[in-house]
Order: sequence, then structure tokens, then C-alpha cells
Amino acid sequence: MQALKERIQSEGKNLGGGILKVDSFINHQVDPQLMYLCGRELARRFKYVGATKVLTAEISGIAPALTTALHLGLPVVYARKNKPITMPDQVYLTLAPSHTKGRMVELIVSPEYLGHGEKVLIIDDFLASGATILGLARLAKAAGAEVVGVGALIEKIFEGGREALKPLGLPIESLACITSMEGGKIVFAGE
Amino acid sequence: MQALKERIQSEGKNLGGGILKVDSFINHQVDPQLMYLCGRELARRFKYVGATKVLTAEISGIAPALTTALHLGLPVVYARKNKPITMPDQVYLTLAPSHTKGRMVELIVSPEYLGHGEKVLIIDDFLASGATILGLARLAKAAGAEVVGVGALIEKIFEGGREALKPLGLPIESLACITSMEGGKIVFAGE
Repeated sequence: MQALKERIQSEGKNLGGGILKVDSFINHQVDPQLMYLCGRELARRFKYVGATKVLTAEISGIAPALTTALHLGLPVVYARKNKPITMPDQVYLTLAPSHTKGRMVELIVSPEYLGHGEKVLIIDDFLASGATILGLARLAKAAGAEVVGVGALIEKIFEGGREALKPLGLPIESLACITSMEGGKIVFAGE
Repeated sequence: MQALKERIQSEGKNLGGGILKVDSFINHQVDPQLMYLCGRELARRFKYVGATKVLTAEISGIAPALTTALHLGLPVVYARKNKPITMPDQVYLTLAPSHTKGRMVELIVSPEYLGHGEKVLIIDDFLASGATILGLARLAKAAGAEVVGVGALIEKIFEGGREALKPLGLPIESLACITSMEGGKIVFAGE
């Protein structure tokens, strides 16, 4: 998606070690108009998969998942990393490594909002190693739901997430696919 | 706002002790269409305050802040509770008690995205004791920004937040104002 790629090129910061800082429009400050357009585009690409729910992980997945779900007319569930007191004792819980925290984090979904027969579209801000998305897919499976697609704003293809997700046999869409961040540059697929 | 009040009445769970569970449409599962309408209504009420930025706190503030900012055509900044590796070492940081965690949490904003001369509209899911919103106001002040309004989806007026915010002399708007949760009921202002 051209608008997203241009924004990454103009405001994204390649911090080295594969870390892309997009805190000015996605991860700390958020551009709602851009998120709206990204959600519209992800919804367009996944219109055909028959999803009944969008699933994401707090925190940075919420904005793109919300706008995608808005355009698909679906509810969105965000997996919590801490169990709030309003959640029942029996939950679906899995562990996934956090890129930005450097440790394992919990991903928790209440059985109240993810159940048997649901068709789940997973949306996140980044597709990097695929670990978070695999964690969300495990939660969906534990709930008896079926994952029908995976969408991300930004894919770092060199971190292998697309390969890691291959066994799931799902359609995978990313709006900006980065092939290399070497030498301080940000290179998109097809450039 | 009638649609929000009806949803609270039909799906909200009064867990006692002043805890209102709205996990089926705000705090775990989110109804994007309802959030869109709530954001539109908050934007309508705050159109006149001249805000240049919307400020909220992760996690549950993100959805209403995003849709409000979308309708106002403004960027939104969400205060982080953990400093990610992409954030500079010098940050604005304050402590606020967390209702659902039962302890103090950090609220952190990068000086990159909140600065002198900004006019900040604070949006959150709940206005209860006002502690989180006062924390956000401290961050704005530390950054040299001016808070121009406070908006929430749901206000629990019996927890005193509106009183606590009075010294700030700001317009405060909530879309559903609950006056009592005694006896398992949920009573809105004016009912």
C-alpha cells in the first residue's frame, strides 16, 4: 500500500538490528486516518475469507485490527498480556516472545469471546518472526475456532515469519513488505 | 449517548464493588461500529476546544481515542505503561493507580510526540476516580502542553473523578454517566 510505504520511508527509523521505529504514526503516536485506510485495504483483501471475528494482541495491534474490523463489520478481540480482574479464572493462555520487551509475554483470551465454530482473521501491526501470530493461532485453536487469514501492516520478510506461518496454510497479506534493512536503508519488496 | 447506554444496560455486568464489566464491547472484545459512533459524538462535543492532539493511556483508551481523533482529524498519542526499546531515554513519566491491576502503573510519553504549545484532548474509556486522567494531565503539563478537554465513554460519577478534575477547570464530557451501581443495578444520570 503506497501511502503506508511512503510514510515508513519518510518517518520510519531504522535503528539497526532489524528494529524499525514507527512510533510517530503506529506504535506510540498513531495516525488515525492512515489506520483507517490500512484497515479498509486489509478488509478489502480479506473480504472473501468468511471471517466472523478479528483477533489481535494488545497493544499495537489494536488500531489496525479495529479499523479492519470496522470495515468488515465484525467484532475484534484483543488478547490481553495481563489478566484483568473482570476475566473469568478459566482462560485460553499461551506464551509468545516479545520483540520489544526481550522476554516471553502471556497472551490471554477469555472463552467468553472466542469459541467453537468462529472463523478468525488475525491482524497485527508487524509480521516479523511470526511468533505473536502463531501464539494467537494457538489461542484460536484452543478455543475451537478456525483461523482463516493473517494480515499485517508491515512485514519484515527477512525475519522469516511468512515461512514460519506456512504450515497453517493461510492467506497472508501485508501492506508494506520490507526485504532488507541493511546499511540503514529500508527496502520494500519489488523495489 | 443512547446507543452506548443501551449496550451497557444489556451487556454490562455489575460485578459489585463498583466494577463494571464491559468486556464484550469495550475492554476485551470491542465493537468497532459502536466505537466509531462514540468517537464521532466525542468529536462533535469537543470540536470547539481547538485541540491539536488526542492523548490517552494504553490499553483500553486506544479504541475510543482513535475514533475520536479520526473524526477530529488529529493524531493520537497513547501513553505507554512500559518503555519500549524504540523510545529515547529521556521521557515524561508519571505514576497512576490502576483500578484493574490493584497497583501503581507508569504512564510514559516520549517528548518526541508531546511538546510545548500543543493543545491536548484527553480521551479514555472510563472516568472513575480520575487518577489516570490526572496522570495524563501531569504528562501534558510536563511537556509544556495545555489540556483543553477530557472525554470518556463511561463515567462512574460516584467515584468522584469529576470532582477530582475540577481544579483543572476543563470541559468534561462522558457519553454514559452512571450515578449508582448499588444492588446489582446500573443507574444512569437523569433516570
